[in-house]
Amino acid sequence: MNSRESNVPRARWRARLHEIIFEADTPAGKMFDVILIWVIVLSVFTVMLESVRSLREAHGDILRTIEWGFTLLFTVEYIIRLVCVQKAWRYATSFFGIVDLVAILPTYLSLFLPGGQALLSVRALRLLRVFRVLKLAHHVKEAGVLMRALRAARYKFTVFISAVLTLVVILGSLIYLVEGSPNGFTSIPRSIYWAIVTVTTVGYGDIAPQTNVGQFLAAIAMLLGYAIIAVPTGIVTVELDRASRLEVSTQVCRHCSREGHDADAAHCKFCGAKL
Amino acid sequence: MNSRESNVPRARWRARLHEIIFEADTPAGKMFDVILIWVIVLSVFTVMLESVRSLREAHGDILRTIEWGFTLLFTVEYIIRLVCVQKAWRYATSFFGIVDLVAILPTYLSLFLPGGQALLSVRALRLLRVFRVLKLAHHVKEAGVLMRALRAARYKFTVFISAVLTLVVILGSLIYLVEGSPNGFTSIPRSIYWAIVTVTTVGYGDIAPQTNVGQFLAAIAMLLGYAIIAVPTGIVTVELDRASRLEVSTQVCRHCSREGHDADAAHCKFCGAKL
Amino acid sequence: MNSRESNVPRARWRARLHEIIFEADTPAGKMFDVILIWVIVLSVFTVMLESVRSLREAHGDILRTIEWGFTLLFTVEYIIRLVCVQKAWRYATSFFGIVDLVAILPTYLSLFLPGGQALLSVRALRLLRVFRVLKLAHHVKEAGVLMRALRAARYKFTVFISAVLTLVVILGSLIYLVEGSPNGFTSIPRSIYWAIVTVTTVGYGDIAPQTNVGQFLAAIAMLLGYAIIAVPTGIVTVELDRASRLEVSTQVCRHCSREGHDADAAHCKFCGAKL
Amino acid sequence: MNSRESNVPRARWRARLHEIIFEADTPAGKMFDVILIWVIVLSVFTVMLESVRSLREAHGDILRTIEWGFTLLFTVEYIIRLVCVQKAWRYATSFFGIVDLVAILPTYLSLFLPGGQALLSVRALRLLRVFRVLKLAHHVKEAGVLMRALRAARYKFTVFISAVLTLVVILGSLIYLVEGSPNGFTSIPRSIYWAIVTVTTVGYGDIAPQTNVGQFLAAIAMLLGYAIIAVPTGIVTVELDRASRLEVSTQVCRHCSREGHDADAAHCKFCGAKL
Repeated sequence: MNSRESNVPRARWRARLHEIIFEADTPAGKMFDVILIWVIVLSVFTVMLESVRSLREAHGDILRTIEWGFTLLFTVEYIIRLVCVQKAWRYATSFFGIVDLVAILPTYLSLFLPGGQALLSVRALRLLRVFRVLKLAHHVKEAGVLMRALRAARYKFTVFISAVLTLVVILGSLIYLVEGSPNGFTSIPRSIYWAIVTVTTVGYGDIAPQTNVGQFLAAIAMLLGYAIIAVPTGIVTVELDRASRLEVSTQVCRHCSREGHDADAAHCKFCGAKL
Repeated sequence: MNSRESNVPRARWRARLHEIIFEADTPAGKMFDVILIWVIVLSVFTVMLESVRSLREAHGDILRTIEWGFTLLFTVEYIIRLVCVQKAWRYATSFFGIVDLVAILPTYLSLFLPGGQALLSVRALRLLRVFRVLKLAHHVKEAGVLMRALRAARYKFTVFISAVLTLVVILGSLIYLVEGSPNGFTSIPRSIYWAIVTVTTVGYGDIAPQTNVGQFLAAIAMLLGYAIIAVPTGIVTVELDRASRLEVSTQVCRHCSREGHDADAAHCKFCGAKL
Repeated sequence: MNSRESNVPRARWRARLHEIIFEADTPAGKMFDVILIWVIVLSVFTVMLESVRSLREAHGDILRTIEWGFTLLFTVEYIIRLVCVQKAWRYATSFFGIVDLVAILPTYLSLFLPGGQALLSVRALRLLRVFRVLKLAHHVKEAGVLMRALRAARYKFTVFISAVLTLVVILGSLIYLVEGSPNGFTSIPRSIYWAIVTVTTVGYGDIAPQTNVGQFLAAIAMLLGYAIIAVPTGIVTVELDRASRLEVSTQVCRHCSREGHDADAAHCKFCGAKL
Repeated sequence: MNSRESNVPRARWRARLHEIIFEADTPAGKMFDVILIWVIVLSVFTVMLESVRSLREAHGDILRTIEWGFTLLFTVEYIIRLVCVQKAWRYATSFFGIVDLVAILPTYLSLFLPGGQALLSVRALRLLRVFRVLKLAHHVKEAGVLMRALRAARYKFTVFISAVLTLVVILGSLIYLVEGSPNGFTSIPRSIYWAIVTVTTVGYGDIAPQTNVGQFLAAIAMLLGYAIIAVPTGIVTVELDRASRLEVSTQVCRHCSREGHDADAAHCKFCGAKL
């Protein structure tokens, strides 16, 4: 609370702007967020359409004009954010501050850089704007429950991902020995790529085992992948169940002001006072 | 109840017809629904078979005759529905009213329209009849539990789908930069299509990364998709668990006021009092 | 209990045989089952190996000899079963009775039938033996919990499968209109096949949309399939959770002798007696 | 405890070494483990890179030098482990003891063996080092919960895997009869491979049914695979839920003797007594 308070600038209009742009409690703040999301989605669509050759050749001028419009809009928004925040530098170096900056730079750079592939790569950075959609999350209470569940599950997830990575390294090495270069398994990293494609049940089919032993190994990899998908699912379900229960019982102890009591609790579990 | 009651026409036979056609409480109403489902399924099969060139050429006349039979049947049903409902317009503009109409129109239109692709497109609308199978749902108590669970999960689902869409836009843009047009990633929308194919673990293989960096990115996309499938699963499981509990236990012991009794319980499991 | 008792023949040795072959309570009965499973697995392997052309051509004689050995063994087993069961006809017409018979017939038929495709088809029936592995289930207590959970979930599963079938019919029809014959979507049934391949996230890639609209539709189908997999998972998890809880509390009421009490129950939920 | 105590050698420095290398309670022991994991990961990466032809040809000397460095390091580690453990033979014949030995042997063998495929196969054994990453698990409390859940689920898993194997044998045999050799289903084992690819929703597309009946069968296989993935997921979720509950609440209130308290509870949530 305190750090946020200190971010509010003293000047009246700066405080008002800050409230609209950075917060979502007032009707104006909510409307600003909704409009912003729509502008971001439209701008992302424009960048997508521009990447389609036929559309670029037919309507290139219109698309470029729209894109400049969006860029100027986002530039104005970025400057206002810098101005109305008290600690401009802290915002500028935060994750969303960097995203906001990187998303407008490419259009300006296109003025100085020559065309071609290099420019193309830089221009695609504009799509980072889509990350800002995630800011929407704090409007939805349910996002909090999901985030809490995923955060609680992070150690179990790390263990699971480590086990999967170990598994695909072993499976990839084995298939590399069994199948070898002629069948598309040209190196261990590529064989590990195949193992990931198989264990996650994606199954492109761009590389597939040809020998009997290789297909037997592939069958085991598939059954393993099919079965172990149950593990992350179980982890998230259990944590989500717990997070949902916490969500249900929002009672706060009147004595020690602490939350997190079970729904069937009659006494505070921290100080023992009656709830 | 009241709005339904008011829909029942005053005339005796209209009330009777309404009971049979729109409700499922009487044996006649139940039988009507079962017969209707079978007629719909058979009619859908006829349309399917007609789309197979070899069958159309060999047995076109028979299939067309059967189709006309079904169409006349559904036309009669549609008219009866309009007649026996009190507020015909409300039914005609409801979702199932429109489906009922759109499903019979194409056959009549085929009398006036010339053959070819245009007609083909229109004729396929007859398959919308399959939607009417969903009406069956209100016969099955379990459908209610499922629907309640999915409705309770809708906000969490929206958050999840937003996060997935953001993810595939970012992944699609990155792979577009890394692989480029020569390897099939001709535009950002097509690259996002690839990202969806990969993250959902469908994995057609019609577009697949060729470069090392692209395959590394694809591997990350697969592992992400493999892991985050756990999130919707967790959401539905938790909500279904809650909806099932509500279904089972709504009775409270009159003696000790405790809940959580099974549906088949005759005595309170805590104090032994009769429920 | 009674019906089982009456199946035991009066003759001493027939009763003993029945105990060994049909029951699994005695050490001899258990050992018989374990040996039988191994013989079935080996026999299934022999049939599999015989289907490989290179092995059939190189070791055909040995494989055929082994196969005759297994067939004679199973024939003896089948006759003994018929003899030692009191109601032979009831066994002969039961599911496993028919499987037992059908699994030995093809080898005898090969004596009378000429070779070629017809024989091949008949011979593959021997693989039905693998069904008998399922008899093993009654040795494992956990199989009971699984079966009870799946049985409890069957109505919800039916609703889910109906919804999925409706969905793939609609998706298949739409893609048929959008893509049409030139891109491999030659008929509505084939397009529905594609829709099933996509919604279940199998994704062969033998038929894949080529147009922009088709790929957009495919992307929606994938996301739907990715999300609704959560529904059967949730259904099974909730039912399994309930079945497992029942499994835990195995206390029987001393008053009314009924089971199925919750773990936290202090009184019988049927008659109210103290547990 | 006792058996572990007896493993600690009497000599001071051996005891100290044992503490650092085999245990993770002291800061030195923890740091040793972290460094070891990193060295293993780096060594695994080196072996992977060496398998890429272009890298091997360009930087073969450097890679081989690094590899020798790692091998000497692991050799020293192996000898120290043998020395500081009291029962050297028990360690040498344990799973991780064998992994530790097998992971260093190939590099030495390359001195005596001629090059080519045989050597390649042997060298890949160095990748077994990746198994040692799993030793990390005992640092993470969550790994214990996961392991306990999976161990509790093992019988149910066996039943499930048996049912899936039975299913793919039947499906594979049926598709072999329906499609036959010309469409890629050259033998029953290969057809079973296809069935596994399909039921697990991997869907390579290297073998795919061409006939109508075959595609109908494939559609059923897909829907079955799509639905039964729910079973292992349900199993793991239920067991994980139980394991997590055990982890959280083992304390009982001394006043009212009730359980189910959270791990951070200081007072009984039912009667308010201090725990």
